[in-house]
Amino acid sequence: MKKLYGIGTGPGDKELLTIKAVKKIQGASVVFAPSNKDKNIALDTVEEYIQYKKVILLDFPMGKVTEKDYINAAQIIYTEIPEGEYGVYLTIGDPMIYSTFIYIMEKLDKNKIQVEIIPGIPSFVLGAAQSKIPLTVKGDKFLLMDEFQENMLDNIDTLCILKTMKDKEKILDVLENKGFSYAYIKRVSLKDEKVLTKKDEIIKDKDYLSFIIGRRKADD
Amino acid sequence: MKKLYGIGTGPGDKELLTIKAVKKIQGASVVFAPSNKDKNIALDTVEEYIQYKKVILLDFPMGKVTEKDYINAAQIIYTEIPEGEYGVYLTIGDPMIYSTFIYIMEKLDKNKIQVEIIPGIPSFVLGAAQSKIPLTVKGDKFLLMDEFQENMLDNIDTLCILKTMKDKEKILDVLENKGFSYAYIKRVSLKDEKVLTKKDEIIKDKDYLSFIIGRRKADD
Repeated sequence: MKKLYGIGTGPGDKELLTIKAVKKIQGASVVFAPSNKDKNIALDTVEEYIQYKKVILLDFPMGKVTEKDYINAAQIIYTEIPEGEYGVYLTIGDPMIYSTFIYIMEKLDKNKIQVEIIPGIPSFVLGAAQSKIPLTVKGDKFLLMDEFQENMLDNIDTLCILKTMKDKEKILDVLENKGFSYAYIKRVSLKDEKVLTKKDEIIKDKDYLSFIIGRRKADD
Repeated sequence: MKKLYGIGTGPGDKELLTIKAVKKIQGASVVFAPSNKDKNIALDTVEEYIQYKKVILLDFPMGKVTEKDYINAAQIIYTEIPEGEYGVYLTIGDPMIYSTFIYIMEKLDKNKIQVEIIPGIPSFVLGAAQSKIPLTVKGDKFLLMDEFQENMLDNIDTLCILKTMKDKEKILDVLENKGFSYAYIKRVSLKDEKVLTKKDEIIKDKDYLSFIIGRRKADD
């Protein structure tokens, strides 16, 4: 049997890899990762563990990826892993949170290839640490989304909105109106990480790798 | 200045510690952890790194912890860390998610002690990996709670309910009615971990270290 590990490499800091992720990567016969136009954060994070390994980049054209791309990727993965050995599929953050791995996993034939998932630190969990905004205390509800939907904030104590490139001003207006404090976390765990809390600074920023955490103020 | 690291030790598997957590624990002058009646999972997880260290267990009486307990804990932490050195406060999962560290952090005088947080793998993230239930794909909303509130499920794609000791039957009924599939994850990452998906088996189980992940079925 062949085996594939879906591995979360965390937000990008090499030291936020888990020991298990490192061990599994070190023992892999082949390494898969989504191909990125610019920086490939997942590959950069594990750089020192894959120096002499076969690395295969899989193409998922941004904004126009189809079911066929996932089927192709699953086929390549199945073909490239030698019988009786295993490969690793790298994904930033965690494989079960907004990741291409979920789609690929669903296309693999479970009778021919075994799949196991090694979790990683999600970016928003590090964002909470860096901004010191608690995600939940006893009784709290936390909401995670990648597209802002303002009618879902009732009874929510903390929320994280990923991919806030557009709509930042509207999001912050809504959060203020509903009694939330907030922080904007940019390039979390990378060299130029920044936590912004001033509205005008947040609105001005144009970085793609950024998200907003909002937390209901104690009095509300 | 003194310094305290709040460190997430993850769900309990020693290999799910991050490299950063291990390094910070190894360099600490003193180790703090909440005192537990039974097994102390956070301490067990880092056992091999704290063998010759001073370990101080802080008491938070279950169900009757008061603000004064957190103030006392913060005072002990401040006193026990030598000037110019650092201590670590261990917490299972992640320090910003349902953890006593949040309350303690708020009681520490930031002018006298610096606080930094090292994230850990939250139990529900590993639960998603073990049950192979995706938490989010593009456009999805994920909700985390420790007390079930059934009127919050509209527009939610995946939810995780921690501490499901009571109310399991009601929770599963609601999930079924609203078109969610589910898994019950018990003692995740521990030796006797189990993923249950049959309603009667889930209802019968009495383990405290367990939670439910529900995901809306594709047709709904």
